[in-house]
Amino acid sequence: MKQTPKNTTRKNFIQKSALLGAGLMLTSTTKLFSTSKTANSMGTNIKSKGYAGNDELGNMALWNFERRPIGDNDILIEIKYSGICHSDIHTIKGHWGKQQYPQVPGHEIAGIVTAVGKEVIKFKVGDKAGVGCMVNSCMQCESCKNGEEHHCETTGMVGTYGSPEKTSPTGITQGGYANNIVVTEYFAIKIPASMQLQYAAPLLCAGITTYSPLMKLKVKKGDKVGVVGIGGLGHMAIKLAVSKGAEVYAFTTSPSKVNDIMAFGAKQVIVVDATEKLKPWFGKLDYIISTVPYAYDMSNYISCVKPYGYFTQVGQPINGELTINNFNMIFNRVNFNGSLIGGIPETQEVMDYCAENNIYPQIQIIKANEINDAWKKVVNKEARYRYVIDASTI
Amino acid sequence: MKQTPKNTTRKNFIQKSALLGAGLMLTSTTKLFSTSKTANSMGTNIKSKGYAGNDELGNMALWNFERRPIGDNDILIEIKYSGICHSDIHTIKGHWGKQQYPQVPGHEIAGIVTAVGKEVIKFKVGDKAGVGCMVNSCMQCESCKNGEEHHCETTGMVGTYGSPEKTSPTGITQGGYANNIVVTEYFAIKIPASMQLQYAAPLLCAGITTYSPLMKLKVKKGDKVGVVGIGGLGHMAIKLAVSKGAEVYAFTTSPSKVNDIMAFGAKQVIVVDATEKLKPWFGKLDYIISTVPYAYDMSNYISCVKPYGYFTQVGQPINGELTINNFNMIFNRVNFNGSLIGGIPETQEVMDYCAENNIYPQIQIIKANEINDAWKKVVNKEARYRYVIDASTI
Ligand SMILES: [Zn+2]
Ligand SMILES: [Zn+2]
Ligand SMILES: [Zn+2]
Ligand SMILES: [Zn+2]
Repeated sequence: MKQTPKNTTRKNFIQKSALLGAGLMLTSTTKLFSTSKTANSMGTNIKSKGYAGNDELGNMALWNFERRPIGDNDILIEIKYSGICHSDIHTIKGHWGKQQYPQVPGHEIAGIVTAVGKEVIKFKVGDKAGVGCMVNSCMQCESCKNGEEHHCETTGMVGTYGSPEKTSPTGITQGGYANNIVVTEYFAIKIPASMQLQYAAPLLCAGITTYSPLMKLKVKKGDKVGVVGIGGLGHMAIKLAVSKGAEVYAFTTSPSKVNDIMAFGAKQVIVVDATEKLKPWFGKLDYIISTVPYAYDMSNYISCVKPYGYFTQVGQPINGELTINNFNMIFNRVNFNGSLIGGIPETQEVMDYCAENNIYPQIQIIKANEINDAWKKVVNKEARYRYVIDASTI
Repeated sequence: MKQTPKNTTRKNFIQKSALLGAGLMLTSTTKLFSTSKTANSMGTNIKSKGYAGNDELGNMALWNFERRPIGDNDILIEIKYSGICHSDIHTIKGHWGKQQYPQVPGHEIAGIVTAVGKEVIKFKVGDKAGVGCMVNSCMQCESCKNGEEHHCETTGMVGTYGSPEKTSPTGITQGGYANNIVVTEYFAIKIPASMQLQYAAPLLCAGITTYSPLMKLKVKKGDKVGVVGIGGLGHMAIKLAVSKGAEVYAFTTSPSKVNDIMAFGAKQVIVVDATEKLKPWFGKLDYIISTVPYAYDMSNYISCVKPYGYFTQVGQPINGELTINNFNMIFNRVNFNGSLIGGIPETQEVMDYCAENNIYPQIQIIKANEINDAWKKVVNKEARYRYVIDASTI
């Protein structure tokens, strides 16, 4: 398809899409799904409201916008809960690159299916469903065929918010700090009946982002696993590694988190108020995962891994830049790598795994008008450990 | 042993060592080994002359100094050739930390054994012998017992120059830009008779430093290996990888090196005059070794490795600091590591391997009074590809 200027495309699309939407199958199962919503979704844009950032200051404010009509392979999810990830803050504040505004962030989305396109097979109305960090990819390339859609080699993955998307009335994808979302069913995750939606939400980024590298390293019983940075991602890394039988050593700069961390199952907490605290750990751990989302003294943490072990950085600092000291690296002999979320099959896997093993994030549910306050607390390391927005308050 | 102030220790040592040196076995085999030298080495300090740096300006000048007497496990080597490594320049100029001066650099040392201590078993007078980047370690720890003396866990390795050493009359080890060296036989490498000394010298740093990571990665026939930075180390990396059957892709910023590099056996040379030149290589190579000894646009080179492959940085930038972009890392999925020289058994292995397979560095022999000029050329990337000092001109 030829590339055309965005505005024209969008205008054309909106005109055309008013004519489409034939095979949309809708069933109204509960009172939640009002008739007006059902009518709206029949081939026309879906009305949404959410909390959007309007510039790099990152003050989130209520915004009424539209999503694309429900296509044949799409589902409409009534969002119930939406987690707050540090990535939301970095993105809206432009730390990772220029953004289009208004933009609704949020990629830890859990809700109930309220409408399905005619080709949808995985979901029916009334099912619990989740959306994580991506909503599309080419589905043709080797990576996509191998369930690594986040590494799509042709178009790249389409992120849940802020990614250019021709089918979106706003020109970009809009995320989960909202009352609903339209998504291709393939990119929606089935949430088991036993999993409460408020706990499901954080699994869709914090859960999969830590689960995926732990699984790549085949973390097993008795392994000594270090987790650096105990926030939303870090506390899930602890719970997941502990559930696999690992001895988990948690590195935090917050003494106030020690009791919580022990309760998550860690074997020991190291409060790192000076680099010296790391020295006794040099060469001691089989593996470390770091969730720190800012530039930090990474090199000394890397040295805590045994020679020829692995250190995975999942936290993304401003502009992505991290300093590595190669004098440390030639002596510690550690392999450094990064890891980006996980593919759709693996996201389903962590959701099912957590449901089966009763692994739940530790969350604080907030109202939509508390988002700005919550963001400040996330930046100040005051989250304990994941803020989850009650979408009914939007 | 209790730590005592360096000067006292040294003075005491010099006084004591005049009384020692009983079991020294000496044989004068050729005219080169004059009677005066034989007399000198009998339990007394060994007179040496070499080219030393006197401050961070790094102007090398002739200096008369002394080495320790030949101990029971030591050999005395009459140095014939000494390679110039970029590390020499970084060290003397203080790029890697404060230094004690005067200091004689040089850790690519090849010569003839002219005296052996009474316990020496590996060498006899007249043998060809080499010294690389280290001259001692604890020999007790796991790393030392495993032939990874460069990763000695107790004392750390004692570098060939600039390392504090109580037995040295100057308080630090003094390197190979000199006419002789005293070294524990274990840390000397046997040079096969068929290997000419001028070619043996560069194998002792440039050779082993590139051979070791190539062997760790088990580089084999058909592997696509990238080499970044084609100087002393890089050109050896090409020759060694080619000898193992790899397809070698060389990345250089010097168009004038292209013909040489093809002659070394590379399959293709990529002249990187802009980051765009790297993009076609993203995700294409099985493995990359980088010898660049300065901070550079490392992240984009890393992305040239296939997902889950490895990138090894052996070049050491000023202060060791390299910037890594974690946005690249989470997408490229490459494992980054460093590698430091190699152990003594592996250094012997690469020496023997090169002798058997006729792999020789491409060298330019210079006189001692050309060292300062050669250093400038090394920094300006004008070396083709290793300067080797003819020690008879010192
Ligand atoms: Zn996230
Ligand atoms: Zn794809
Ligand atoms: Zn060297
Ligand atoms: Zn040792």
